[in-house]
Amino acid sequence: MFEAVELGQKVSKKEFDDALPELRTRLIQAQTAFSKYHGPLVIILNGMDGAGKGELMNYLGGLMDLRNVIIKTFWQENGEEKSKPLYWKYWMSLPYRGHIGFFFGAWYSGEMLEAAKGNIESAEYERRMKRAAAFESSLADDGAVFVKFWFHLSKKTSKKKTDELKKKFGKGEIVERAMWHREKYDAIVKAAERGIRLTDHSKARWHLIEADDKRHRTLKALRIIVETLEAAVASIGAKHKAEKRAVGIAPPVLSKVDLSLTAEYEDYKKKLPELQERLNAMAWKAYNKKRSVIAVFEGWDAAGKGSAIRRIVQGTDIRLASVISVAAPTDEEKAHHYLWRFWRHIPSAGFITVYDRSWYGRVLVERVEEFAAENEWSRSFEEINEFEEHLTESGIILVKFWVHINKDEQLKRFKEREKLPWKQYKITDEDWRNREKWDMYEEAANEMISRTSTWHSPWNLIAGNDKKYARLKILETMYEAMEEKL
Amino acid sequence: MFEAVELGQKVSKKEFDDALPELRTRLIQAQTAFSKYHGPLVIILNGMDGAGKGELMNYLGGLMDLRNVIIKTFWQENGEEKSKPLYWKYWMSLPYRGHIGFFFGAWYSGEMLEAAKGNIESAEYERRMKRAAAFESSLADDGAVFVKFWFHLSKKTSKKKTDELKKKFGKGEIVERAMWHREKYDAIVKAAERGIRLTDHSKARWHLIEADDKRHRTLKALRIIVETLEAAVASIGAKHKAEKRAVGIAPPVLSKVDLSLTAEYEDYKKKLPELQERLNAMAWKAYNKKRSVIAVFEGWDAAGKGSAIRRIVQGTDIRLASVISVAAPTDEEKAHHYLWRFWRHIPSAGFITVYDRSWYGRVLVERVEEFAAENEWSRSFEEINEFEEHLTESGIILVKFWVHINKDEQLKRFKEREKLPWKQYKITDEDWRNREKWDMYEEAANEMISRTSTWHSPWNLIAGNDKKYARLKILETMYEAMEEKL
Repeated sequence: MFEAVELGQKVSKKEFDDALPELRTRLIQAQTAFSKYHGPLVIILNGMDGAGKGELMNYLGGLMDLRNVIIKTFWQENGEEKSKPLYWKYWMSLPYRGHIGFFFGAWYSGEMLEAAKGNIESAEYERRMKRAAAFESSLADDGAVFVKFWFHLSKKTSKKKTDELKKKFGKGEIVERAMWHREKYDAIVKAAERGIRLTDHSKARWHLIEADDKRHRTLKALRIIVETLEAAVASIGAKHKAEKRAVGIAPPVLSKVDLSLTAEYEDYKKKLPELQERLNAMAWKAYNKKRSVIAVFEGWDAAGKGSAIRRIVQGTDIRLASVISVAAPTDEEKAHHYLWRFWRHIPSAGFITVYDRSWYGRVLVERVEEFAAENEWSRSFEEINEFEEHLTESGIILVKFWVHINKDEQLKRFKEREKLPWKQYKITDEDWRNREKWDMYEEAANEMISRTSTWHSPWNLIAGNDKKYARLKILETMYEAMEEKL
Repeated sequence: MFEAVELGQKVSKKEFDDALPELRTRLIQAQTAFSKYHGPLVIILNGMDGAGKGELMNYLGGLMDLRNVIIKTFWQENGEEKSKPLYWKYWMSLPYRGHIGFFFGAWYSGEMLEAAKGNIESAEYERRMKRAAAFESSLADDGAVFVKFWFHLSKKTSKKKTDELKKKFGKGEIVERAMWHREKYDAIVKAAERGIRLTDHSKARWHLIEADDKRHRTLKALRIIVETLEAAVASIGAKHKAEKRAVGIAPPVLSKVDLSLTAEYEDYKKKLPELQERLNAMAWKAYNKKRSVIAVFEGWDAAGKGSAIRRIVQGTDIRLASVISVAAPTDEEKAHHYLWRFWRHIPSAGFITVYDRSWYGRVLVERVEEFAAENEWSRSFEEINEFEEHLTESGIILVKFWVHINKDEQLKRFKEREKLPWKQYKITDEDWRNREKWDMYEEAANEMISRTSTWHSPWNLIAGNDKKYARLKILETMYEAMEEKL
C-alpha cells in the first residue's frame, strides 16, 4: 500500500508560494463557517518518525485561527489517565461541535508500535484496530468529521533523516529513538499498513501522504483539510435523513420477574446491617486491589431506586462510594456525543460509583419522549455494549439493576408520596405523565434489557413490589458480583 | 475554646426519635427549595479522630435526597492533583449553585495536622489559615453558604474510643493512627483551636459540636444544617444590595507606553527564528524541571495578540505548548465562581499554556459592558491577586502581557481587516462597538494594571503599534521571565 505513494512528488518554492494565499484564505473562511457545524472535526496526524508531523502542526498553527482549536499529543499519560479505561483520555480530549482537534498518534500509534515490536498477537491487534474504528464510527454517526493522515517516508529518506539527526545531536534520547525506528522500519511499515487497512472506513478515511518533500506534504495536507472543512460547511443545514427501522417487538423479559417475592420485617432488620457490613468489607477489598465498581440503577419511577442506593451508601465507607444522579445534560455535555458525559465521570481505580439512572436514558426516556431520533437511539444499543466492554475490560466491575414494580404498585406509591410531606419532593406532574406512557416504556425497557444484557455485564432484574426484598436482593447481588471478580 | 463545649450534653433515644420526623421533613423540603439558591452550600466536616464524622455522613446520606449532593473526602491525592496548585482540587470539587457539598477535612485538616506535628512555623500556619479564610470569603461573596463543623471529643472519651478500637482490631493501620491521635491529643487541640480562631469569620462560621454523645452530635448537626438551608431559602429572590464604591481615577499607566518603538524588517527576520529557538530550548528546560508556564495576553482589539501567540506556538514544540482562548462561559462555568473556569484549566507541571484573554475579562469587558456589578468586579482585583499568588507559589511561571496600540492604529487595522479576505473573520460589529467605548476600556485597563501588577506577577506593557517590534519584545520577555525562574 505504501509503495503506491512513493512517487517522488515534489513541490517547488514557486508553486508553493503561488498556491498558499488562496488556500490560506479558504482555510480561514472555512474554519470560521465550520463553527456552526453540528459535529467536531478530528484530524489525526500519524506516520513515520521524522516525517514532519510536528512541523506541519506548527505551520498550520501559524495559519489558522487558534480559537476553537485543540492540539493533543498524548505523549505522556498522567496518573489519572492510567487509572481509567484506555479510551477515557481520548473521550476527554474530543473537541466540541464546530471545533477542531488535531490529535497526534491518537488511538493508533501506541498500538501500531506494540504490533511492530511483536508485543501483541495478530488477532489482538486486529481487535484493537476494530475498536478504534468502532469508536470513530460512533462519533461520526453523531456528526464528527475525521481526517486521518499517515505521513509516509521512504526507507531512503528515513535513513537520511536519521543520519542528519545523529550528526546534529550525537547521542541521547532522540537519536536512540530515531535509530530504533530506522532499524525497525520494515516492521513498523508492516504494522501500520495493516492497521490502516483495518481502520479505513467510509466514516473516517485515511490519507496517505508522501512525506519526503516538505512543501509537497504541507500543501497536500493543507488542501485535504481545507476541502474537508468546505465540504462539511456546505452540508450545514442539510437534514439528516432518518433511517427507517423495522419496529421490533421486544421479548417480554420484564413479565418474567416474579413480583410476589417478599422479605419478612424481622429478617430484613437482621440481614440488612449484615449485608451492609459485608459489602463494606468487599468495598475495601476492591479498593486494595484497585478495582472500581460501577452500579447502575434503572427502573420505573417510584420503584425504590433511590432508597436502595441510600442503603448502599449508608453501609459503605464514605471515602469509597459516591453517587451520580443523572439529570439533563449541560451545554458542554450537549456539545459532545451523548456518551461523553458518562466517560467523563468514570471513577478512578478502586472506588465505587453508583449511578441513579444512567446512559440507558438514551434508549428509555430519550426514545419514548422522542428527544433522540430513531436512528440515534437505535444505534445506541451497540454503542452502549461497546462502552461497557471498555469499562469491564479495564477491570471495572459493572453491576446493572432494573428495579421492577407493576403499574398498581406504582400508583399506590405515587399516592403515598403526595400525602407524606418528606416525600412530596419526589413526585411531580412529569411522573404522572410518564405513567401514561407505561406501555411504551415497557417496550423500551424490554428491548433495552434484551439487547444490552451481555456476558460481560448482564442485567439484574429486581422484584421491587416489596421494598425490603428488593433492598436485600440488591445488596446481595452487588456483593456477589464483586466477590466473583475479586 | 473547646473546654466551653465540654458540657456533657446528651440526647436520649426518646428525645431523638421525637425530634427526627419534623427535622427530616424540614431537611428534605429545604433541600428541594435550595436548588433555586444562587450559590452552593458547602458543609465542612472536621474534628477529632473518632468523633463520628463518617457516621454522621452515612446517617445524613440516608435522610437526604442524594441528587445535587457531592461528598468529598480528599484523603487520597492523585497524580494530577499533585501536579497542580494545592487549591486546584478544592476548586474542582465545588458544588454547583443550588447544590450541596460535604467536604471532609477540606482545606483544614492537612494544615492542622502539620501544625500539630510541629512541621510548620506559627507564622506559616497563620498564613495558610488566612488563605483558607480568603478562599471562603471569595466564594461567599459569590453566593456560597458555608457551614463548618468541628466535632470535639473530650480527652476522656477520646481515650475510651481508642481503647475500644484497640480491643476490637488489635493492631494495624487504623489502631496506630488512633494511638497517634491519642498521644497527640493536646497538640491537635491546640493547633485546631488556633486554626479555628483564625478562620472563623462572618462569611463562614465554625460550629463547635460536643461529639461525645452520638445522638447529641447528630441532632445538633442536623439542626444547624436545616436552619442554614432554611435561612438561605428564605433569602431567595432578595436583591443583593450593590455596594457603593468611589469611582477612582486610575493612574494613566498606559499613556507611558512608548508607541514609537519599531523593529527593522531585516532585524526581525533574523531575530524571530533565533528567539523562537531559544524559547523552545527554555520550554524543554521548564519541562524537565516540571515547572509550568502561563502566559496571559490582554490588550486592545487588533493589537496583535493572536499573531504574537502564533509566533510562540510556531516556535515551540507542539507537545509542550497549548493555547486557551477565553470565550463566553458555558453553563457549567456560570454555575460556579467566575475564577472556577480558570482553575479548571491550570496546566499540569511542566507545560506552557498561553491564554488569549483571561480572568482579567472580569475587570475589563465585564466591567465596561456591565455584565458584572460594581461590587463584583471591584472585589476581583484582590481575588485575582490571590489567585495568581496560588499559581506562582506552586511554582508556575506567570507572564502577563498587555499589548498596547493607540486609537489611530486600531482604526487602520480594522479597515485593513475588512479589506483582506483572510482577515475578515477577525472583525465584527462588536469590535466597532467596543471601539466607541475606548475611554472606558482605557480607564478599566489602567486600574487593572495598577492594581494587579504585583511583585510575583507584574504586567509587561508591550508597545504594539509596530507588530514586528511587539512580537520580538514578547518572545524576549517570555524567554527572560522563564530564564530568571529556571
